[in-house]
Amino acid sequence: MKRDKGLLIVLSGPSGVGKGTVCGALRKHDTHIRYSVSATTRNPREGEIDGVNYFFKSKEEFESMIENNELLEWAKYVDNYYGTPRKYVEETIAAGHDVILEIEVQGALQVKETFPEGVFIFLMPPSIKELRSRLEGRGTETQDLIDSRITVAKDEIELMDKYDYVVENDEVEAAVERIKSIVTAENCKKERLIHIYKELVKE
Amino acid sequence: MKRDKGLLIVLSGPSGVGKGTVCGALRKHDTHIRYSVSATTRNPREGEIDGVNYFFKSKEEFESMIENNELLEWAKYVDNYYGTPRKYVEETIAAGHDVILEIEVQGALQVKETFPEGVFIFLMPPSIKELRSRLEGRGTETQDLIDSRITVAKDEIELMDKYDYVVENDEVEAAVERIKSIVTAENCKKERLIHIYKELVKE
Repeated sequence: MKRDKGLLIVLSGPSGVGKGTVCGALRKHDTHIRYSVSATTRNPREGEIDGVNYFFKSKEEFESMIENNELLEWAKYVDNYYGTPRKYVEETIAAGHDVILEIEVQGALQVKETFPEGVFIFLMPPSIKELRSRLEGRGTETQDLIDSRITVAKDEIELMDKYDYVVENDEVEAAVERIKSIVTAENCKKERLIHIYKELVKE
Repeated sequence: MKRDKGLLIVLSGPSGVGKGTVCGALRKHDTHIRYSVSATTRNPREGEIDGVNYFFKSKEEFESMIENNELLEWAKYVDNYYGTPRKYVEETIAAGHDVILEIEVQGALQVKETFPEGVFIFLMPPSIKELRSRLEGRGTETQDLIDSRITVAKDEIELMDKYDYVVENDEVEAAVERIKSIVTAENCKKERLIHIYKELVKE
């Protein structure tokens, strides 16, 4: 299939819903999707690798990227910066490849302003109770911080309306299959194909 | 997942593109999709069973169904009537099940007037040359009839704009996978889920 531009796919959702786990599982599938690596000032969690999971930056480095307009979006979330380097995303889409961004809700809404034609997927916990239990399961955060994340999560769920799709993360592989289906379906959308097929009639 | 209503999925495309073959292959997959059976006045092809592939009707029977408003859509296409019994479709959707209609292009556009919220999929031949070769391969039609079908097909491809998705039927199983993905993605659309999840926040 001839394509002009790739899709920009934005996978977002509340902290603790499992964006990283789902995105990691998706990477193990044989898809043509490319993965954007975010920059952050937060500390690496166990097993996270610089340049693979995130580009880990100091506060000063990050603020210089903001100033130089090198970020497609950025957000400060519970004292840490998160952001998406712009260049990789723009070049990869222009080359006709689909790119996925796994980002926080604040950042996703910024990307929507620049790329309204993006595919915005909201990853949803099965319940607030389950979200709390996942945050507690990490064992890396205080009860106060978890309470604050739950409050933020509820506000973020209210922003679901800005998204195109909602994927329940009840089970990681099920969520991955839904995301793969969304990407396939988006690539079959009439708007993206009609100019190719109008040519066919002229044969 | 709690659902109010099922999806109405309309699979259409030019005569000879392989709608019947693709729909038959889809039926062999384990999906939750229900299949509407069309009524027609055309003669059964070899292997076709009344009530499974079509309800085969006389011209008089079909015209009485039109008069009694028992058809969701109907069309006359090269001297034969084709139509979709209304009752099965409406009841199945109301019960929360997805239903697929495999119908001609004229009929699909009629359904769109009644069900603009339906999911309209245009099955596309890889080329006009390939479409001609498939029609010839059937061995059931004269060269004049094939020429007329190709002219109609070109007009129908111009109507692609009225559809939501375009699926290339390059290979039957690949087309089936694309259709399954579209159904999965449509079931993840925010519009269909947001009222469920707004409840979640109130927990």
